[in-house]
Amino acid sequence: MRIDLNSDLGEGFGPWVMGDDPAMLDVVTSANIACGGHAGDPQTMFATLRLAAARGVVVGAHPGYPDREGFGRRVIPMQPAEIGRMVAAQVGALQGVAALAGARVRYVKPHGALGNLAAENREVADAVAAAVAALPGGLAVLAISGTELELAARAAGMAVFSEIFADRAYLPDGRLVPRTQPGAVLHDAGQAAERLARFLDSGLMPVIGGDPIPLAAHSVCVHGDSAGAVAMARTLRARLDAAGVTVAPFLSG
Amino acid sequence: MRIDLNSDLGEGFGPWVMGDDPAMLDVVTSANIACGGHAGDPQTMFATLRLAAARGVVVGAHPGYPDREGFGRRVIPMQPAEIGRMVAAQVGALQGVAALAGARVRYVKPHGALGNLAAENREVADAVAAAVAALPGGLAVLAISGTELELAARAAGMAVFSEIFADRAYLPDGRLVPRTQPGAVLHDAGQAAERLARFLDSGLMPVIGGDPIPLAAHSVCVHGDSAGAVAMARTLRARLDAAGVTVAPFLSG
Amino acid sequence: MRIDLNSDLGEGFGPWVMGDDPAMLDVVTSANIACGGHAGDPQTMFATLRLAAARGVVVGAHPGYPDREGFGRRVIPMQPAEIGRMVAAQVGALQGVAALAGARVRYVKPHGALGNLAAENREVADAVAAAVAALPGGLAVLAISGTELELAARAAGMAVFSEIFADRAYLPDGRLVPRTQPGAVLHDAGQAAERLARFLDSGLMPVIGGDPIPLAAHSVCVHGDSAGAVAMARTLRARLDAAGVTVAPFLSG
Amino acid sequence: MRIDLNSDLGEGFGPWVMGDDPAMLDVVTSANIACGGHAGDPQTMFATLRLAAARGVVVGAHPGYPDREGFGRRVIPMQPAEIGRMVAAQVGALQGVAALAGARVRYVKPHGALGNLAAENREVADAVAAAVAALPGGLAVLAISGTELELAARAAGMAVFSEIFADRAYLPDGRLVPRTQPGAVLHDAGQAAERLARFLDSGLMPVIGGDPIPLAAHSVCVHGDSAGAVAMARTLRARLDAAGVTVAPFLSG
Repeated sequence: MRIDLNSDLGEGFGPWVMGDDPAMLDVVTSANIACGGHAGDPQTMFATLRLAAARGVVVGAHPGYPDREGFGRRVIPMQPAEIGRMVAAQVGALQGVAALAGARVRYVKPHGALGNLAAENREVADAVAAAVAALPGGLAVLAISGTELELAARAAGMAVFSEIFADRAYLPDGRLVPRTQPGAVLHDAGQAAERLARFLDSGLMPVIGGDPIPLAAHSVCVHGDSAGAVAMARTLRARLDAAGVTVAPFLSG
Repeated sequence: MRIDLNSDLGEGFGPWVMGDDPAMLDVVTSANIACGGHAGDPQTMFATLRLAAARGVVVGAHPGYPDREGFGRRVIPMQPAEIGRMVAAQVGALQGVAALAGARVRYVKPHGALGNLAAENREVADAVAAAVAALPGGLAVLAISGTELELAARAAGMAVFSEIFADRAYLPDGRLVPRTQPGAVLHDAGQAAERLARFLDSGLMPVIGGDPIPLAAHSVCVHGDSAGAVAMARTLRARLDAAGVTVAPFLSG
Repeated sequence: MRIDLNSDLGEGFGPWVMGDDPAMLDVVTSANIACGGHAGDPQTMFATLRLAAARGVVVGAHPGYPDREGFGRRVIPMQPAEIGRMVAAQVGALQGVAALAGARVRYVKPHGALGNLAAENREVADAVAAAVAALPGGLAVLAISGTELELAARAAGMAVFSEIFADRAYLPDGRLVPRTQPGAVLHDAGQAAERLARFLDSGLMPVIGGDPIPLAAHSVCVHGDSAGAVAMARTLRARLDAAGVTVAPFLSG
Repeated sequence: MRIDLNSDLGEGFGPWVMGDDPAMLDVVTSANIACGGHAGDPQTMFATLRLAAARGVVVGAHPGYPDREGFGRRVIPMQPAEIGRMVAAQVGALQGVAALAGARVRYVKPHGALGNLAAENREVADAVAAAVAALPGGLAVLAISGTELELAARAAGMAVFSEIFADRAYLPDGRLVPRTQPGAVLHDAGQAAERLARFLDSGLMPVIGGDPIPLAAHSVCVHGDSAGAVAMARTLRARLDAAGVTVAPFLSG
């Protein structure tokens, strides 16, 4: 049994901090680092890359809409080709800072509204995949299992890794229960950890309205933008360690 | 006799245009492209990279202070290390977009107030040189002859190319006559072209207050941000062509 | 016969210029000035306010989505209440600079995607109207005839003025023919001027697919963001002057 | 005995929070609210204005250099006239949002590097004072005692109020001991509160290298951007309350 834990990090901006990055970097094994779009700036990127490198945490780029006020959670109307160029610029920026920090960007995971759109819209997913494929470094894609982005990246011949959520309920077709429905989010850290440990053991994920299903899972996404979230992540990690699960990055650093 | 002509390009932003890039790309052989700091955005970078590639114009990165309102002409107080990270992020962004555009970034020339500071301040020059040296692609530095940036890049073991100005008067020590002094700027395009052709022929640049001096010159910087500037650039190019000078990039594309 | 001509002005940003403001200010009688959202900054606002004041051109505020890269032409997902606060901040900023420039902001006309949304969506229209009504100075609203914004501003008890377009075809219900349909835009300045003069004379606007209709019209919107647009505006103004139409602001300065 | 406590508030941006505004608004009687320059946005301004109004805290505008990454702590080179326009735009923006929030802006206190420059440079101080004087609402100025800004505002015939610092040591001429010198900052909240209470009682402020001096003081500036700072502010307030000092705004709301 082996799994990666990933989290969105480096999401401060200038004087502002988001979450407790040092604490999360002691829990996760892969770090999705903001690239100056929805969050992050050269100084924040550098500091986060250094923190990650010092802990052996593998680094991915976390590009998002260039909309700081909306934290990348609003869809900014753009053509797919425009999105591709934006992703190339942001990931390139992080790669540039990583070169200076002595770190290496290994994969890309889109953020927020961009991630949601790339999950549902094949044209956008293709544009994101094409941009990532064009960049140097043999970048992989980290995508939610079953999304258009996963398909697009696979079609582009790229390495694709799948992530699941410890705190979200699933539907029989493998998709997430929408947040608007009851039971969509597991608020109890212990319960989420328990479910995850059983899934890793059995390969089957419980779903709402059906029998447990097999699910591709290379990584578990844990949130880190609140004090409660850090506690949840620690509980998860401790439960996995206790269950003898090897918590390790899906790629080498 | 052989020389390169370089110009600052891709300095629009969003809906705004700066200068006539297509016209300038028919004149110059190297393009310093803005990287989203003082000007430029992913769409502008992509379009400019494509225009340059289509004409065989060699591409350099033109990073500047992240100060669009001031167009990178104001010194933003930053530590040298902060400047280095900023340069790495901006050049990385252009490299990312270039990868998508099928183009290659070959050199770096800092813009405006950053360029001036890197010319005078060795610590800043070292930080810029270290950032450029850390980036992939074997980037060269394009610097004004005799500046701290030239020395810093050379000390870092990098390829360094020197630029001169066709429309600026020189001092006996090889530095530019400050703009505040009379005669600092040559306003007549024909006269500037004539002086340049003679310099390329003789290797000696006329100076104010002394005998002509030898000057390292791989490239001539031409400005393109006004209608008059484009005309000046065209006059210069025509004069060089007529004199049998080979106008060609200092690096291959 | 009397009509106002209005145009969007002050839409530069930092070093970048949009259109030929001085030329347009010789043609129009009301100026919609950008407020630092989609375009404009304190220096641009000040300079435009001064130019307008020197020519006796009446000043309106032209707020837009805070999206410079998209020039306010993209809908940024926001709640109506958020839009109201954004409008209050932008119009307030222009009022502040106007106070310093010795000018007075008399009305508000939303820009681009914000204007389109406020024309179609009553909740957004109500939020915009409420924000404008809350501001000091007894601001009027300049709205396209027949839109939700016109209705909302009227319902809020505000002074509302209606604008028409000289270069756009109309439908029998008074709305504009969508740009995607043939004949939506009149490209010939002389023809547009002719149609406008006849409308001002008769009070009836020709429509596609029906008899001419009466249309409320206090102002004609003329575009100024291209060389051709300035020529169009001048042709319009000359034709109106020749026809003995009094071209004058709908509000006093 | 009567004094005001003021603090910088509303200094979040988009998703990012700075300090604990609700906690500070229970301690202070005047709130310097960021205006979208160094921090703040329309939503943050509105929320902070509402929080202040609900507690009867008087509102001032807190304009700063438009440099979010530097949090307004870096001098951005600008002409005094440019600074004046920037201040007018920012204070106007807050006034606009305040009108919508049912609140009133009563004074202006410049932030960070702008505040420091206006304290030392008379031309900048005059430009700031002129901008504030031009705005509607009869705005006062809150300035550090003895600074150029205080003199400039007084010369412009404006209402000026003086602030002191509970946690900073003073020199015999009434200026602050520079932070670079030992003893410049009082880190112990109880000690700072004690010194303040004695000063309010006697009218004499202890100084380093001399006898206690009289000092104009309408308000005490308390910092709120850290957990320790909130505790310091609460200690101060409790000490003043216990000493029978009336803690009240220097202006009515």
